[in-house]
Amino acid sequence: MAKKAAEAGRGKSAASQRDRVTLAKIVELADRVSKSAFAGREPKVEIPSRTRSNTIWNRKRGILEMGGAASERELFNLNQAKQFMQTMLHASTIKDLIEADKTSSLRGVFYKAKHTVAGTKENTFDTQDESDPILEDLEVTLEALREELHIFAEPRGAMVGNITIIDKGDEINCRRMGTGGYQIPSIVEPDVIRFGKCEAKFVLHVEKGTVWQRFNEDRFWEKNNCILTHGAGQPPRGVRRLLQRFNRELKLPIICVLDCDPWGHYIYSVIKQGSISLAFESTRLAIPEAKFLGIRAKDYEACSLSEAVKIDLSDNDVKRAKEIAAYPWFEGHKGWQREIAHLLKNGFKMEVESLITKDISYVTETYVPQRLKAKDWLD
Amino acid sequence: MAKKAAEAGRGKSAASQRDRVTLAKIVELADRVSKSAFAGREPKVEIPSRTRSNTIWNRKRGILEMGGAASERELFNLNQAKQFMQTMLHASTIKDLIEADKTSSLRGVFYKAKHTVAGTKENTFDTQDESDPILEDLEVTLEALREELHIFAEPRGAMVGNITIIDKGDEINCRRMGTGGYQIPSIVEPDVIRFGKCEAKFVLHVEKGTVWQRFNEDRFWEKNNCILTHGAGQPPRGVRRLLQRFNRELKLPIICVLDCDPWGHYIYSVIKQGSISLAFESTRLAIPEAKFLGIRAKDYEACSLSEAVKIDLSDNDVKRAKEIAAYPWFEGHKGWQREIAHLLKNGFKMEVESLITKDISYVTETYVPQRLKAKDWLD
Repeated sequence: MAKKAAEAGRGKSAASQRDRVTLAKIVELADRVSKSAFAGREPKVEIPSRTRSNTIWNRKRGILEMGGAASERELFNLNQAKQFMQTMLHASTIKDLIEADKTSSLRGVFYKAKHTVAGTKENTFDTQDESDPILEDLEVTLEALREELHIFAEPRGAMVGNITIIDKGDEINCRRMGTGGYQIPSIVEPDVIRFGKCEAKFVLHVEKGTVWQRFNEDRFWEKNNCILTHGAGQPPRGVRRLLQRFNRELKLPIICVLDCDPWGHYIYSVIKQGSISLAFESTRLAIPEAKFLGIRAKDYEACSLSEAVKIDLSDNDVKRAKEIAAYPWFEGHKGWQREIAHLLKNGFKMEVESLITKDISYVTETYVPQRLKAKDWLD
Repeated sequence: MAKKAAEAGRGKSAASQRDRVTLAKIVELADRVSKSAFAGREPKVEIPSRTRSNTIWNRKRGILEMGGAASERELFNLNQAKQFMQTMLHASTIKDLIEADKTSSLRGVFYKAKHTVAGTKENTFDTQDESDPILEDLEVTLEALREELHIFAEPRGAMVGNITIIDKGDEINCRRMGTGGYQIPSIVEPDVIRFGKCEAKFVLHVEKGTVWQRFNEDRFWEKNNCILTHGAGQPPRGVRRLLQRFNRELKLPIICVLDCDPWGHYIYSVIKQGSISLAFESTRLAIPEAKFLGIRAKDYEACSLSEAVKIDLSDNDVKRAKEIAAYPWFEGHKGWQREIAHLLKNGFKMEVESLITKDISYVTETYVPQRLKAKDWLD
């Protein structure tokens, strides 16, 4: 019990420090607005631009970054007044959340701010589609991740493996999680999630929960001394952030097993460099060292697979593959250029689950162990 | 270690017994076919009909059931030959899975059976859409749940609370699962999942992971001595089966907190009585005693909610609400008739998350505890 209290306490103080910084930024934002107003100048906030043209590929760091462009949001501008008010409303909700030491979902924040403006028929927000981008504006303006603003999304993804996780003071032994696993929460910042004992030498990240179950059932993580994660498709921010923390803090390589198709390549690209729409988060979410182990376009021949594994590329797949090949971080990468060219030459995609055509456990007992041993991956 | 081995051993023998029964049924199915063939009669299987007209509402048991209608699937019938072959192929894969003591995803089973028939250009299966219904045919023919056929789906949903779960011999203390929780696996049959110590007096089931996080953060399960689950929307079979086992084996009431809209009502209906398309599973999945605590149509006034919570009913919502009111199990239920009439009279729906407009923790600290105390629910 004493240990638990000490851990909870440690979590608490880390939270308070982080929260104090975020709170100070919100107060500063509000101060600037009110000072302008009292000085007879027009109240405004400066919001960094989350546009494609303001996204920069930092080759040296290997991540997408946001450039220096920003736009002003003014109260006395008919086109901007509503968004100005929405920005202030959400900043206020976030302040309340942090002060109450509580978190809320994106939808909860929307409801919290939604009301009809007194004396009018105008709503502050009509739909959540209006609300979420304002929160992203606040993230870039305050230079704080959404998770630091105490806001979470639907949790997705799970893990098992040779590590102990300390989650709000609870010790979770990921070596003893049966068939179910530990659901990866939406907020995995260091004040919530800390790392205990870890024997694992790397992280194997797979795309889908069904593939994860195959690896877990075969106890891949035990036989290969690793951590096994999945993100239920495109991994949510919580999973990406946790993978990044495993990589940075525990120095664990992140090795991805995804489908051999443009969607699999795109998932890898987001894990590795970040996404264009959320370039401002890359510093905290991207993992430039992440590796793509497979499925590879060469595997149809290399693994002597049967016709059954082939799924024809659609016109859209071809278009997406070419777009991805032209990403600046794939453009100068010979391995990836060859990989995508091979996919296009094949004319078909292949899913991780198709390896079952060799044998139920071929993927866990032969394919991945062989590739790991040979360090045969793209990075 | 000895304890773990003993538990794993116990799990194993339960598995073997169940598996022996399933295997015997598959062999019997194959025997009937081959006996017919050798006797010069035409090879065929009889498949119970999974149609709406063969779905019966068993008022006494409070669940949907499958009637006695069945259809024959013959090899020497041009319209049925392909499905006959597909049925045999999948039965064979399932036999292999059980004998290897492994499980596979629905997609894995599809790949396992997919190939081009020798000497033709005909594929055994072209898409998974053809494959999944054949597995449902086998479920009803063999009178075995998909999970007993060693087939799983994508895992969804999570839990925390005052219970210990023994998952393949691993003891999972759901009182110490932090913010993340235990991911509910797809297969929760007694040979995989057993129940350890349980102080909980009921289960609170919520629709979404985001709502679940609010309840978990406020430690609702600790303050109210319960188990807290979510199903990430319409709960998958694994979550429904686990809730049913909590209800039957541990005698825990299952109390649902869902949105006040036709979708929330439908989710409740499926948890309680089963679904028409999978009526054959109801005996193993439905929970006739499940209760609907809220959100209720009366809550707009009862809780003095603001305009912000209202979301207008669409034409489709109105149509769905009327369809649900006409379900036989809602038709004779005065409480539900009043509830749906009230929803239609309101003309708007309300989500659980909208209660944040009262206060961040209103739903966990006021709304649900008050309703529980007053036993104010629909059943």
